[in-house]
Amino acid sequence: MPKLVLVRHGQSEWNEKNLFTGWVDVRLSAVGEKEAHRAGELIKEAGIQADILYTSKLSRAIQTANIALSSADQLYIPVKRSWRLNERHYGALQGKDKAQTLETYGKEQFQVWRRSFDVPPPVIEDSSEFSQAGDVRYNDIDPAVIPKTESLALVIDRLLPYWQDEIAADLLAGKTVLIAAHGNSLRALVKHLDKISDDDIAGLNIPTGIPLVYELDEKLQPTKPAYYLDPEAAAAGAAAVAAQGSKK
Amino acid sequence: MPKLVLVRHGQSEWNEKNLFTGWVDVRLSAVGEKEAHRAGELIKEAGIQADILYTSKLSRAIQTANIALSSADQLYIPVKRSWRLNERHYGALQGKDKAQTLETYGKEQFQVWRRSFDVPPPVIEDSSEFSQAGDVRYNDIDPAVIPKTESLALVIDRLLPYWQDEIAADLLAGKTVLIAAHGNSLRALVKHLDKISDDDIAGLNIPTGIPLVYELDEKLQPTKPAYYLDPEAAAAGAAAVAAQGSKK
Repeated sequence: MPKLVLVRHGQSEWNEKNLFTGWVDVRLSAVGEKEAHRAGELIKEAGIQADILYTSKLSRAIQTANIALSSADQLYIPVKRSWRLNERHYGALQGKDKAQTLETYGKEQFQVWRRSFDVPPPVIEDSSEFSQAGDVRYNDIDPAVIPKTESLALVIDRLLPYWQDEIAADLLAGKTVLIAAHGNSLRALVKHLDKISDDDIAGLNIPTGIPLVYELDEKLQPTKPAYYLDPEAAAAGAAAVAAQGSKK
Repeated sequence: MPKLVLVRHGQSEWNEKNLFTGWVDVRLSAVGEKEAHRAGELIKEAGIQADILYTSKLSRAIQTANIALSSADQLYIPVKRSWRLNERHYGALQGKDKAQTLETYGKEQFQVWRRSFDVPPPVIEDSSEFSQAGDVRYNDIDPAVIPKTESLALVIDRLLPYWQDEIAADLLAGKTVLIAAHGNSLRALVKHLDKISDDDIAGLNIPTGIPLVYELDEKLQPTKPAYYLDPEAAAAGAAAVAAQGSKK
């Protein structure tokens, strides 16, 4: 039976500073490294043997995977990386302070940018130091698809083809697939798998560093509700993520 | 122009204890982690931008690559792993103390096992705790090819097909290829690239943690002698490796 294990990266240097990150390639903080280590321990304790790892192209997800697989003693599994698993591109908000943005634009606009399904933030200029235009890590894809901003709807649009072709193929071959990615790319995937409506997805918060396990049938439908490997920590973590927007 | 960068993993927990390792999956020591970090710094300082990473299936090579790419800020590059890049299988010597083996069998036999081109050590029994029979990391290959012992000649035999098909394809596409592997799998590759004779290869020692760079033409022939990114440290490191056999 195919098994899918999702891990959201832990605290990054910019989570710590409360800045919008998106596609900016910041590293894990010391706390984030600890979370990744714990994720690997949980995988090992649950007796999960991953057959293949998927990551985004962003260092914080890759670091999370490397640390977790090291502590799970599964460093040797094959790896695929894709920009299609990247975090949502936060457009012109990238690099901006969240509390400052909330103050400048007001709570309503702030919530629209953070949580509306299909309203993206303003586009980022190519000349911005936080733009990904010209970033060498995307040299192997059509430059036209590198986003300048994204809504969650746009994240789903670019993630699903990768799910349908690459990840699905490994799952349908009966493999246990581990994905290390980001809050919004994982929300996009969970929305798809659990058939969550465009309205309800705003209320879904995925905690960091706690593996979320899907057991799937041969049509890649969940055979039972997905479960966290540490449900108590997951509940506390989701509440913390939900509270993030109001942090000063 | 294709560029090939070879990195031999740094000190492992068993190098530190002076045990024969081979395919036993031991981790880097703290010293080995430091060496890997330095390797990444050297790659970054040299302005080398890797396009793809190859590793063996052994944790110490993968850890080396992960740490080096982190310090070179190139974590995002695609990765391929193969057992064909693994260290030489040391047969029944795996897990044995080197100084003890030298004492038990005498210097002549010891040197034959360590340095002869085509005489492998005695085979390891499947029942040995240091055998790789049944190791899940090799579940995706024909079990018949998992070695029970290897000479350097046998390492070359199993490495070359992977070089010819996979690594060569990336180099011929003009990519810069980084390989993180082991003393003997890298000696096998260097022997092939530099056309070193079966007799002379015994005298070649590759230092740990210092990237070795080959610039190749369109026939994958070196256009000039390969060079270490830190030649002084490399010379000292090679001398240290050469002295290893006599260590008590």
